[in-house]
Amino acid sequence: MNTKSGAILVLSGPSGAGKSSLIRKIMDDIGPIYFSISTTTRAMREGEADGRDYHFVTKEVFAQEIEEEMFLEYAVVHGNYYGTSLGPVKKALKEGKLVIFDIDVQGHDAVQNRLSDITTSVFITTPTLQELKTRLLNRSTDSDEVIAKRLEMAKREVQRISEYDFLIVNDDLDEAAAVLVNIAKAARMKIPTLQINEFVQTWEEKA
Amino acid sequence: MNTKSGAILVLSGPSGAGKSSLIRKIMDDIGPIYFSISTTTRAMREGEADGRDYHFVTKEVFAQEIEEEMFLEYAVVHGNYYGTSLGPVKKALKEGKLVIFDIDVQGHDAVQNRLSDITTSVFITTPTLQELKTRLLNRSTDSDEVIAKRLEMAKREVQRISEYDFLIVNDDLDEAAAVLVNIAKAARMKIPTLQINEFVQTWEEKA
Repeated sequence: MNTKSGAILVLSGPSGAGKSSLIRKIMDDIGPIYFSISTTTRAMREGEADGRDYHFVTKEVFAQEIEEEMFLEYAVVHGNYYGTSLGPVKKALKEGKLVIFDIDVQGHDAVQNRLSDITTSVFITTPTLQELKTRLLNRSTDSDEVIAKRLEMAKREVQRISEYDFLIVNDDLDEAAAVLVNIAKAARMKIPTLQINEFVQTWEEKA
Repeated sequence: MNTKSGAILVLSGPSGAGKSSLIRKIMDDIGPIYFSISTTTRAMREGEADGRDYHFVTKEVFAQEIEEEMFLEYAVVHGNYYGTSLGPVKKALKEGKLVIFDIDVQGHDAVQNRLSDITTSVFITTPTLQELKTRLLNRSTDSDEVIAKRLEMAKREVQRISEYDFLIVNDDLDEAAAVLVNIAKAARMKIPTLQINEFVQTWEEKA
């Protein structure tokens, strides 16, 4: 009972805080995981691959799936739809995997509303806004306009850190990874309320 | 910031579920801890030591300390007072230690009410009531009357498992210890709300 059922680990935080590097670093140390890939209606960019970066679909397909309640959460950003499809998440949970979400504060909200009993959430950020800016400038993948947008969004998201179970200030990647490994391993131990209720109800009777 | 401040790990569960064995087993693997020792007015029993099993005090001293708000929580059981003194807990937290409490469901309630931001809680139990009875009979330290009382209390406490962050069904000590180590290591990463607020407030300004 301790380890059979899957669980969810939500990672949020500004683009540039090092989420992807952290996940790559800990992946081999935390047991079977499923990394949730978002579905989007926005156009595929150079270097992106369908099914790796996103599931790319048309607006018609997305609208259809909303109607069929196939999303755990979805949002509209700059006129494009982004969402998390329930199907693969449910499958991975059934297989006992730790499902990892890299989603924003809104997405975290939606996951907590529906699956709080098996969810652990971590906010990952740089020590300062200045440091975030430096990192975004150094990786030089984004235009100045995109960087400015990311920084504005970061300012808003940081205000909601207290909604998360854990905060990781990523000033040293090795140290941050060590912390995240511990959190991920513990996250796996969360048990669905239904399973707990069943345990409680039968505890006295079982021989 | 990630690891400096102390945190709290609450362990609850029936006497006989293996809490003490588990703590002994994981103690060397989870970093600096302070094991909280309760204060009581009940008489010292054979084999017990003051400051190891309990802090033994008179009812007058206990009443005085209640008045001075020196308890994190206290309760009256069978006419005797039992409580957790705040002083040593605060000191251990300041030293960055993980403070471990072996307390009942009521005590857990009190800790959550006052220190939920840095508290992680685990309910530890046997797979079944029958198994608990067998273990209590086998260790033959308790009279039939005491065993009966413990079983009744266990039935009541098990009903409140869902108030805890984690459930460990201790049917294999090694497996249960491995789970508890992960939870204890993650528990240490909880950050006090005050510290988070300070971080959020200064994040934009810090250079």
